[in-house]
Amino acid sequence: MGEPDLRHGFKDLMPLDAAEVRGQIRSGAYRSHTAGLGRNKLQANLAILPKTFALDFFRYCQRNPKPCPIVGVSDTGSPALPALGRDIDVRTDVPAYYVYENGALAESRFDITDLWSDEFVAFALGCSFTFERAMRAAGIALWHIDNNRTVPMYRSSIDSISAGPFMGPVVVSMRAIDKDRLQQVVEISKRFPMAHGSPLHWGDPGEIGIDDIGAPDWGDASPIGEGQVPVFWACGVTPQVAIEQARIPVCITHKPGHMLITDVDDDAEVPGLRSTRPQARTGK
Amino acid sequence: MGEPDLRHGFKDLMPLDAAEVRGQIRSGAYRSHTAGLGRNKLQANLAILPKTFALDFFRYCQRNPKPCPIVGVSDTGSPALPALGRDIDVRTDVPAYYVYENGALAESRFDITDLWSDEFVAFALGCSFTFERAMRAAGIALWHIDNNRTVPMYRSSIDSISAGPFMGPVVVSMRAIDKDRLQQVVEISKRFPMAHGSPLHWGDPGEIGIDDIGAPDWGDASPIGEGQVPVFWACGVTPQVAIEQARIPVCITHKPGHMLITDVDDDAEVPGLRSTRPQARTGK
Repeated sequence: MGEPDLRHGFKDLMPLDAAEVRGQIRSGAYRSHTAGLGRNKLQANLAILPKTFALDFFRYCQRNPKPCPIVGVSDTGSPALPALGRDIDVRTDVPAYYVYENGALAESRFDITDLWSDEFVAFALGCSFTFERAMRAAGIALWHIDNNRTVPMYRSSIDSISAGPFMGPVVVSMRAIDKDRLQQVVEISKRFPMAHGSPLHWGDPGEIGIDDIGAPDWGDASPIGEGQVPVFWACGVTPQVAIEQARIPVCITHKPGHMLITDVDDDAEVPGLRSTRPQARTGK
Repeated sequence: MGEPDLRHGFKDLMPLDAAEVRGQIRSGAYRSHTAGLGRNKLQANLAILPKTFALDFFRYCQRNPKPCPIVGVSDTGSPALPALGRDIDVRTDVPAYYVYENGALAESRFDITDLWSDEFVAFALGCSFTFERAMRAAGIALWHIDNNRTVPMYRSSIDSISAGPFMGPVVVSMRAIDKDRLQQVVEISKRFPMAHGSPLHWGDPGEIGIDDIGAPDWGDASPIGEGQVPVFWACGVTPQVAIEQARIPVCITHKPGHMLITDVDDDAEVPGLRSTRPQARTGK
């Protein structure tokens, strides 16, 4: 996950809180993947689009909440996401970005400040790091993490629900789970609707159009051990494919694995800094 | 809840499924409130706005997920919400509508077909009927239902998070709960993020700016019995107040209590007709 371009080592950042990690990223001192960083705060996929496409993309995500769980949307022209972190600046706070032009990857960058436009709207979408942490905390082994690989991802035969120019297959990620832990894994991931929720499918990959489990479309092939079942979750690559297929003039995303780390607890009930019982004020 | 303008009696509709109830409403045969109808399907608040305001209103709801849980958004100019029900037409499928002009209630109607515009976007937002049903199924008494009143609602001192012209207080509904059932009530309602989720507050109403619990801003005053605690949930009137304060030229909502009944199970994990394990197709 991510090339080893570390001015600071990954392990140096492990003890830091989310705002401190963002500070290291913002200064350019850290440019690699964010899995395991930020001490149990919600991490997010990022998609930045011109406002002309924002309403349709918003609808696309709302209609496909499992692959595209919306956790924050900026004001038009603003790089801030104050409900997710008071100091967040989406132009600098992600370790690496991909810039798409007319649906094709045009370049990879560490900072997009000079590309920013008053027409841009930034969308933050939940990611699987959240439920993976909860699974590992429950003692469930995840091969790709234990072996420092990227989770395998596949184009499924399930169509996403379209909105305007945004459409395409639901992309799924696969984790091999011991059969006797399947029910537990379903229950754990269902608790995290901001992180793709419960699996879309388990068992025969052919039922969702995956002909060769050993040949993922993205990420690294992952073995399915004796007594294990392949379990498939909706994946945050789904909106990236929809954006590519829509061929919109310009779009900026995070580089896979290089996420936006927020200040929201990854087990929060809703995606915002407010607690369940908000700080009350007196008087109307 | 709703004047007794029933060509069909409420009890005649109790056995009907959601699509059948919508059919009765669409034909004009039923024009009253929908609590308890549609056999355990998700019911929704409705807000229809010109597209100019749609992106900001979408952001407002996303930023305030407890009062404004988005369950469906139409294409611009389309009265359909196919992910919520294949035949839904928001121009005819709600028993009664309110039309606002420049922030003021202009009229109440049973049908808005002749007001429809190609510029309109319809938003469906979850409502409390869902968690109320779950609470009653768990044996928790709710005074306003047992006494055929409207739940009391109050402007709280908690500010919603603004988006464009949309802002204002979080409106809360209050239900008096036996102290020994409080934890259970919190857990039950937390299971329904599409229906306002867990309470925002319980205990002293003054802590959230409510000076007189006996004088609700909407609905009927409800007693707090011996051994009971007032429990406050975020309420779907919040976006209606935000819409009024924004003074947008035109907006159409359902009349309170007269909801859109969808075909989605009210305990579905995500707001859409797809099940957790979607119908799979073979081949890519």
